[in-house]
Amino acid sequence: MPFVTIELTREGVTREQKQELIKGVTDLITEVLNKDPHLTHIAIHEIDTDNWGYAGEQISVLREKGITADKK
Amino acid sequence: MPFVTIELTREGVTREQKQELIKGVTDLITEVLNKDPHLTHIAIHEIDTDNWGYAGEQISVLREKGITADKK
Amino acid sequence: MPFVTIELTREGVTREQKQELIKGVTDLITEVLNKDPHLTHIAIHEIDTDNWGYAGEQISVLREKGITADKK
Amino acid sequence: MPFVTIELTREGVTREQKQELIKGVTDLITEVLNKDPHLTHIAIHEIDTDNWGYAGEQISVLREKGITADKK
Amino acid sequence: MPFVTIELTREGVTREQKQELIKGVTDLITEVLNKDPHLTHIAIHEIDTDNWGYAGEQISVLREKGITADKK
Amino acid sequence: MPFVTIELTREGVTREQKQELIKGVTDLITEVLNKDPHLTHIAIHEIDTDNWGYAGEQISVLREKGITADKK
Repeated sequence: MPFVTIELTREGVTREQKQELIKGVTDLITEVLNKDPHLTHIAIHEIDTDNWGYAGEQISVLREKGITADKK
Repeated sequence: MPFVTIELTREGVTREQKQELIKGVTDLITEVLNKDPHLTHIAIHEIDTDNWGYAGEQISVLREKGITADKK
Repeated sequence: MPFVTIELTREGVTREQKQELIKGVTDLITEVLNKDPHLTHIAIHEIDTDNWGYAGEQISVLREKGITADKK
Repeated sequence: MPFVTIELTREGVTREQKQELIKGVTDLITEVLNKDPHLTHIAIHEIDTDNWGYAGEQISVLREKGITADKK
Repeated sequence: MPFVTIELTREGVTREQKQELIKGVTDLITEVLNKDPHLTHIAIHEIDTDNWGYAGEQISVLREKGITADKK
Repeated sequence: MPFVTIELTREGVTREQKQELIKGVTDLITEVLNKDPHLTHIAIHEIDTDNWGYAGEQISVLREKGITADKK
């Protein structure tokens, strides 16, 4: 029965990465909650960088300043 | 006061079908809950088939395999 | 594949009304979009009247003033 | 920790207006709840006017009839 | 037409703080987008601290360790 | 920057299971998208079984009939 929404910025996530997210989250829910995977749906919402704010700033502005979201 | 979100895959839903969903859901809420329809808002989110997962698979992949969501 | 969220205020919606909403929305989607109903999930979010704002006011305050959401 | 979603119709909201919304909401939450702004994320969802319903009508249809959402 | 959802942890937000958030966000949208406030709805979702994750940890666990979300 | 919402039915999910979901999803996003985990927030929404519909039926009714969501 789970429905999962993943909101992230539209910054070149590939089809393969989306498939990895979908497969990984579904497997995790199946394993942790013992849910039938046919009941798990996942929607990825890609949000333009002008439309996402972090700490009061648009992500597009942060990117122009060279600030990334990468793991260090 | 209700706010309804309908998440579905972007697969050619027509303007007329969207209007039918909007009219139908609003009428249903007005009838069942006796709510003033001017307080009911509905947003339809169309999600790319690469961005929706079902049972661990991307919908775009399922469609390539000929698997549909049609009522039998 | 649709997932529907209905956000409304927690003001005594009965189990039967919830069932009517669930049945009605599912039937509507099945009919308008020809979707297999086993792919349609619906979640009703009941929100405390202190937690819903309309026109800048809490619903709990509007109710104390005798203002309802009823259809006239 | 707050996450804020703003759903509105896609009707020419400018980059500057989005920045004003992001800044304003983040400042408000920081001030009212005393939250570290680095924990506040905001996503603006722009919805096509065919995909938003109000009082049972598509916004695109209301706009064709000359009905706006402007403050009077 | 805007619909705003504010997700935050259930940690003693008062009725007055909720009213400040509702009033502040509605005023901001009215001012920045010139929207009729009767079209703006806001729902605050309070999430139990066991149910919110940040950097891979439950908020309830972070709080037990004395880590807060307060602005420094 | 990701924000993940997991909607599931309120049917006895334990604190440990929630932690496993939070840890697992955060690790997955960090690995697949190379995102700083301090930017990933997750909210689990537990929905009463009267408030979730599947195939037009309330989950509470399905459970009374002995129909579960368990993986076979």
